[in-house]
Amino acid sequence: MTERVGFIGLGIMGLPMAGNILKAGFPVTVWNRTASRAEPLAQAGAQVAASPREVAAQSDIIITMVTASEDVRQVTLGEDGVIHGAQRGAVVVDMSTISPQVTREIAEALQAQGIAMLDAPVSGGDVGARNATLSIMVGGDAAVVERVRPVFEAMGKKITHIGPNGAGQTCKLVNQILVVGNNMAMAEALTFATRAGVDVGRVLEAVSGGAAGSWQLSNLGPRILKRDFAPGFSIRNQQKDLRLAMEAADQMRLPLLGTSMIHSLFRVLEADGRADEGTQALVKALEKLTGVTVEG
Amino acid sequence: MTERVGFIGLGIMGLPMAGNILKAGFPVTVWNRTASRAEPLAQAGAQVAASPREVAAQSDIIITMVTASEDVRQVTLGEDGVIHGAQRGAVVVDMSTISPQVTREIAEALQAQGIAMLDAPVSGGDVGARNATLSIMVGGDAAVVERVRPVFEAMGKKITHIGPNGAGQTCKLVNQILVVGNNMAMAEALTFATRAGVDVGRVLEAVSGGAAGSWQLSNLGPRILKRDFAPGFSIRNQQKDLRLAMEAADQMRLPLLGTSMIHSLFRVLEADGRADEGTQALVKALEKLTGVTVEG
Repeated sequence: MTERVGFIGLGIMGLPMAGNILKAGFPVTVWNRTASRAEPLAQAGAQVAASPREVAAQSDIIITMVTASEDVRQVTLGEDGVIHGAQRGAVVVDMSTISPQVTREIAEALQAQGIAMLDAPVSGGDVGARNATLSIMVGGDAAVVERVRPVFEAMGKKITHIGPNGAGQTCKLVNQILVVGNNMAMAEALTFATRAGVDVGRVLEAVSGGAAGSWQLSNLGPRILKRDFAPGFSIRNQQKDLRLAMEAADQMRLPLLGTSMIHSLFRVLEADGRADEGTQALVKALEKLTGVTVEG
Repeated sequence: MTERVGFIGLGIMGLPMAGNILKAGFPVTVWNRTASRAEPLAQAGAQVAASPREVAAQSDIIITMVTASEDVRQVTLGEDGVIHGAQRGAVVVDMSTISPQVTREIAEALQAQGIAMLDAPVSGGDVGARNATLSIMVGGDAAVVERVRPVFEAMGKKITHIGPNGAGQTCKLVNQILVVGNNMAMAEALTFATRAGVDVGRVLEAVSGGAAGSWQLSNLGPRILKRDFAPGFSIRNQQKDLRLAMEAADQMRLPLLGTSMIHSLFRVLEADGRADEGTQALVKALEKLTGVTVEG
């Protein structure tokens, strides 16, 4: 029997993700705080519910894709939340990027009502969401992961079961620590090259394919040289994720020497009104410190 | 007419590089401080000279592959150095990683005697040296680069002319800033994942192919999980290169926020007697701070 899928949160990520589930042939019921966002999905055959609770009442698998830990808590456990409408045996799949700790708390509360939960944050951005090429990092019970896998496969390409509840979120934070660290290395290297007076485009060409190479360098380096700071992923969203990493590290009393510095440098850009620029604008914090302008 | 090639410095890099030039059919004359290192090349048909000066007297293109800035100065400009044996029109190609500033000084001194110079540091390590797959970053006159290109092609795959003398060395330092920055991101991310209690092998699998990916992560991450700290590239050599980057940055009054911290963390490992371990041992500095042991 085909699982009925509920989808809560139709933002820049959620809308195309829900669309891809619908395209894959699942019956879909959606809800969004701003109801008008649901219209294209309604026209494509989705049911539109009046609350997360109603979504849950119509669905076997309920996906949440919202912004912050408290948003997930609200739509799952709050008044009119999923927990009040879902049947025993239903699965809540939170694909937002939120706190691993809050994830475990929500999973426990749902579990007590016989509702399973997976945390399944994604990487790949809005392009990945549209093209159904997201990487999905999953925490929760293996059997539940297998049950949801066909729905994941409608949205993503690489689906990895990391471990129990919270492990998906932890993996996402690891991902973000790597992303910003590689971004910082790029910003520092390009600033150095520019100040030293060499042709930065040739340098980029010489080093990108070897031991210095990274996704960040190959994909964002050329944009910096063109002074293209349009967001693939915005500083605002990057900072939200880094706050989660810093918070988790604080709970573990774990220093994050690199990440904490980068988080601070992004703050300089937030203070400068650049929160909606792409993360590649990190180089602008170093440019501000040094008077260098990276171009090529 | 085939260029006669001289090769000075037959260490772990220089020996296989000279061998590959010989294999490509160039007449080769070599010199090494420890003469016995030249034996395999002599057996393969190389001439062995008694000094850098003698190498230069027998060669059109003289390659130096030694350790430090002062070593290059000694074998090129010192007593019995290349400058005393080379004919006008010869080319000195320094493939060591040394100071861009010292490079420009040596190039000027050679130029005054009608001897051209290229700085052409490499990346790719001893494996790249043996397999003739080095990346070569070249500074100097374009016409001279073209003249030497067939010799470069005997040693490397990606040959990039960056700019005038010193630009090759600057590019190499940019390469090293990227390498250690990506290494640091990996070390911090793996420490975070381990402390958070997730399966680090699965995390690595989930994140390596996406926006968090890097050569360092794909190649050194799995070694860390196996606790394999054998040197592909040693901390000793990495620190030598970072000293050059720090020195160049100091001359330019340029902060290197990330690199200076990483340089300090490597010092912790030097103090612990780990200078001959591979650079992936950077994670051990974070392990020492946190009590975490990354394994998987």
